Amino acid sequence: VVSRLPSVGTTIFTVMSKLAQECGAINLSQGYPDFNADDLLFERVAHWMRAGANQYPPMAGVPALREAIARKVEALYGTAYDVDSEITVTAGATQALFTAVAALVHPGDEVIVFEPVYDSYAPAVELQGGKVVRMRLCAPDYRPDWAAVAAAIGPRTRMIMINSPHNPTATVWGAEDMARLAELTRGTGIVVVSDEVYEHIVFDGACHESCARHPELAARSLIVSSFGKTYHITGWKVGYVVGPRELMAEFRKVHQFNVFTVNTPAQHALADYMADAARHLKLAAFYEAKRDFFRDALGGSLFELLPSRGTYFQLARYRAIADEPDSVFCQRLTRETGVAAIPVSAFFADGHDERVVRFCFAKNEDTLARACERLRALA
Amino acid sequence: VVSRLPSVGTTIFTVMSKLAQECGAINLSQGYPDFNADDLLFERVAHWMRAGANQYPPMAGVPALREAIARKVEALYGTAYDVDSEITVTAGATQALFTAVAALVHPGDEVIVFEPVYDSYAPAVELQGGKVVRMRLCAPDYRPDWAAVAAAIGPRTRMIMINSPHNPTATVWGAEDMARLAELTRGTGIVVVSDEVYEHIVFDGACHESCARHPELAARSLIVSSFGKTYHITGWKVGYVVGPRELMAEFRKVHQFNVFTVNTPAQHALADYMADAARHLKLAAFYEAKRDFFRDALGGSLFELLPSRGTYFQLARYRAIADEPDSVFCQRLTRETGVAAIPVSAFFADGHDERVVRFCFAKNEDTLARACERLRALA
Ligand SMILES: CSCCC(=O)C(=O)O
Ligand SMILES: CSCCC(=O)C(=O)O
Repeated sequence: VVSRLPSVGTTIFTVMSKLAQECGAINLSQGYPDFNADDLLFERVAHWMRAGANQYPPMAGVPALREAIARKVEALYGTAYDVDSEITVTAGATQALFTAVAALVHPGDEVIVFEPVYDSYAPAVELQGGKVVRMRLCAPDYRPDWAAVAAAIGPRTRMIMINSPHNPTATVWGAEDMARLAELTRGTGIVVVSDEVYEHIVFDGACHESCARHPELAARSLIVSSFGKTYHITGWKVGYVVGPRELMAEFRKVHQFNVFTVNTPAQHALADYMADAARHLKLAAFYEAKRDFFRDALGGSLFELLPSRGTYFQLARYRAIADEPDSVFCQRLTRETGVAAIPVSAFFADGHDERVVRFCFAKNEDTLARACERLRALA
Repeated sequence: VVSRLPSVGTTIFTVMSKLAQECGAINLSQGYPDFNADDLLFERVAHWMRAGANQYPPMAGVPALREAIARKVEALYGTAYDVDSEITVTAGATQALFTAVAALVHPGDEVIVFEPVYDSYAPAVELQGGKVVRMRLCAPDYRPDWAAVAAAIGPRTRMIMINSPHNPTATVWGAEDMARLAELTRGTGIVVVSDEVYEHIVFDGACHESCARHPELAARSLIVSSFGKTYHITGWKVGYVVGPRELMAEFRKVHQFNVFTVNTPAQHALADYMADAARHLKLAAFYEAKRDFFRDALGGSLFELLPSRGTYFQLARYRAIADEPDSVFCQRLTRETGVAAIPVSAFFADGHDERVVRFCFAKNEDTLARACERLRALA
């Protein structure tokens, strides 16, 4: 077989989680909680299964869930999306991103992404014959260089994929970033695909600058989010995309032949669960406490902690511990120290290595305390 | 936006189910049961959610489910698939088919399909820049013309997509068909993608000729199946693909960036549920009784019933009732008679119309009796 993705291996998340398991290490690599979701959510799934909600839902998603999404997005960000034509439930955010690219990127089109970049973006673009144009965010502040973006935009630019709060850097874009993005894409026909899966995890009183807060941008954006991070159910694989009717019509053409639709009882349960907005509004404080706990517990260590302004990730420089490639360091950390982390070079196409690793702090304090004890012992 | 799928509208299943709902018609169009799945399955989902199985499972699927699939396939069809490298759990069969095409079809490649063809196949191929080559199955027996297939195979042929038991014609391929397919693809590098979602619904003592029963074919096939039809859970969206390691490696490259993985609690529950093979082995008799009931109840009608040898579909010619396009007939049937069906022309690219409609008999006898009463009244 001639591969369509010759340079693609297994995702770093699978590689590190597997190694962590083999070594019995504490797994702070792949981003998922080690505590359980809310019983009420399970009770609702059980209810809907018994009620017979086990057959195909409408292609775009269960109406009650689309209505709940519309209400939330309008309440938080001010943009009203039409339930029938502007909201689609997806099999997680990854499927939404993949489908958006497949629906809108033509062979030869250019797609701008920001490195370090989540590992599914570039292969999705390349599979459609698109060209990935990489803008670099650099340590320690990982700010976008808007002058460089302006220079990179050309007649072939079809899409810009953004992600704030940002995985893996834990940075959060401000209103001025959104203003620059709006300015640079004005009148161009460029579509913005905005991955906002950490929308409810923003710290220190900062504001999540959803594209849906910026009407001009919203008019040319597909905004992707997910319930996985918000309700501690990364394995349920329910996400959604909102966007203007014209873009959504193209999205759905591919969506209906990719997955057609999404787990019915989970959709109904999530619609019920979304009714109480406190559930997502309390999330920032919940994870901010974990961030603070984790950072405090690493206080006596040789790791240099970068800012964590959102997401449930913490970047750390380890140069004071070892001067070796981050992939080697992560392997050793997992095997010898018993703590798994993600080497940030995995998010760069050329393996750019800043001697920085990513820890996930979506864990019980217990887990974090045990991990930090091991990490503090490194000298 | 310039569409990547300019000729694609909304799937006929969505169109007809929506119309059925609007008209309060009995919905025999989209293929799904109107009875509920087994309580035990729900109990298992509830168990696994409470047990904390709500985070990302391994990319290829929960190991216990892959093991159960391997056991079933080997027991029924004789081919042993490696649990680690030759089985992947998918978000339904549709996602498996889409992903197989995306992973293996290069721009310019030709893919042979058999018309009437399930409506997701061709758009998946076209989206990858592949060329769809259509072989026609014709009423009343819908047999493949193997000489025509031989003539259609050329140096650009990359894939042949097959489907037995066949939706919508309810035909079942025999061992001689598989032998011809093996012969025609020998030494060619052509990949067979075999959609076997109705594998357990074969009537009159006939045998399901899975590619996995034919070792030579199995070695170049990705076999797709699903739990939706087998366990009455079309809305759960859990399917799987099995195939040789080399093909599966390419499949997973795309799968991991398309959906990454599939609903965790559902996977665990299905692994438990598969332990009792009687559950899938009894399915043929269960649906054969429904087929017989439905055909008997239509006995006094003007519909000419074609053979139904598998699936939960029944084709019927309506020429004695009306001589009008099948899409018009289905609209009228839904609005005026109160029974929704699928126009078979929707499965032909050129709208080829044999005045045949498809009924789904995966319904309670009650539902079928009420529908048939209405259909018998047509004169
Ligand atoms: C899809 S597995 C990876 C989970 C995740 O989003 C991360 O760890 O960054
Ligand atoms: C994906 S909805 C269509 C269900 C189905 O397989 C059919 O009705 O043929």
